[in-house]
Amino acid sequence: MLERIELAVVPAEAAAIATEAYIVVDVLRATTTIATLFARGLTSLVAAGRIELARELAANERRLLMGEVHGLPPAGFDFGNSPVEAAAAPVAGRGGVLFTTNGTAALCLLAGRGAVFAGAAANATALAAHVAAHYASATVVCAGNAAGARFSLEDFAAAGMIAGALSDAAPAAALGDAAALARHTPDLADLIGLSEHANVVRALGLGGDVEFCARLDTSAAVPMVVACGDGWARIETV
Amino acid sequence: MLERIELAVVPAEAAAIATEAYIVVDVLRATTTIATLFARGLTSLVAAGRIELARELAANERRLLMGEVHGLPPAGFDFGNSPVEAAAAPVAGRGGVLFTTNGTAALCLLAGRGAVFAGAAANATALAAHVAAHYASATVVCAGNAAGARFSLEDFAAAGMIAGALSDAAPAAALGDAAALARHTPDLADLIGLSEHANVVRALGLGGDVEFCARLDTSAAVPMVVACGDGWARIETV
Repeated sequence: MLERIELAVVPAEAAAIATEAYIVVDVLRATTTIATLFARGLTSLVAAGRIELARELAANERRLLMGEVHGLPPAGFDFGNSPVEAAAAPVAGRGGVLFTTNGTAALCLLAGRGAVFAGAAANATALAAHVAAHYASATVVCAGNAAGARFSLEDFAAAGMIAGALSDAAPAAALGDAAALARHTPDLADLIGLSEHANVVRALGLGGDVEFCARLDTSAAVPMVVACGDGWARIETV
Repeated sequence: MLERIELAVVPAEAAAIATEAYIVVDVLRATTTIATLFARGLTSLVAAGRIELARELAANERRLLMGEVHGLPPAGFDFGNSPVEAAAAPVAGRGGVLFTTNGTAALCLLAGRGAVFAGAAANATALAAHVAAHYASATVVCAGNAAGARFSLEDFAAAGMIAGALSDAAPAAALGDAAALARHTPDLADLIGLSEHANVVRALGLGGDVEFCARLDTSAAVPMVVACGDGWARIETV
């Protein structure tokens, strides 16, 4: 039963927090896309931090190739890093590779320190139910901007939604300072659209993705990292 | 005229933000004590990160010796690191040394990167007026817990009060993501007393300090770092 809920405001803070579980949040858009792809029946996903590695894995393992460079899918990719696109994509029964530098780095940072999950507003309640039932302590980790060096409002907001779902699932659990701030903050979902990165995504014509990423519980998937290597994290649903 | 307001949620984030001014916030209790001592007429203060260095500077330069170990003044110290005590202390015309590991580290981290100030709820409006008038960009930096490795709710709350005062002084200034979160957060002053560290301070019987640290504008001092060395920062008012 969950006894302690922490929130790491940037990935570096997570390195100073010892918990049994970590939930990595890169809500605009990697972890929302991941939660959506698994809800559509994707069987497994490799998050890859380098584009050459992503292409190689997709070719060698016959996986769908997805991801973005400057927000859009590069030439030869099957799909972008778009949850709206993922929500309609024919991925059932397939494996995938998602090229995402920031998301992969945050997922791999915590490998070996505890169970690592990919979380978003999209799968907040499903993820929280699983984590609250199986671990005594959990940290929700904001992937952040600028390779994790900067705080991102959208990741804090989504992490706060997950921390809230954890707290609802385990009302007696103690909250660390940043988790307490998130609980105190009104209108978390609205903050996702008010972030600096939301403006970047909207400027690419992908405002639908921003709206999608702010929606709670569009997915029941609980994506967990099952293996990590140099620049990649393999994810399957629990 | 101030054009951009950033807030660094932990000291490490400030290293990734280039602005003309930095306002370091260690509200429970170092920077509140500093703002209070200068309001009482202290002429200069050296923040020292090592206790031997603090004793040496106080002896050699005939400065009042202040500070804490586990929250309380060590033997031979003139005063603790207590703003309530500072508010009544006969310091006018004297120099001081304040032994504070975390606060000194955060002040020195930014030396050479821009103008560095010590800020708290206590001097939020005075500091904001000065910074908004003299710099084009400013970052309010949370000193944090655990030697800056962890987010602290009380520093975020006080930093948010300062960011709010900056924004009031320069309404056209753009807000970075964490500054925008602070502007969105209600009842910032109340959060200081809800932090984990506030409980530690209260457990020492110093609940009056927690209440004092949450009060806005008890000081008109604008303390600025004028020199930094190995483990020390010399502070004078502007």
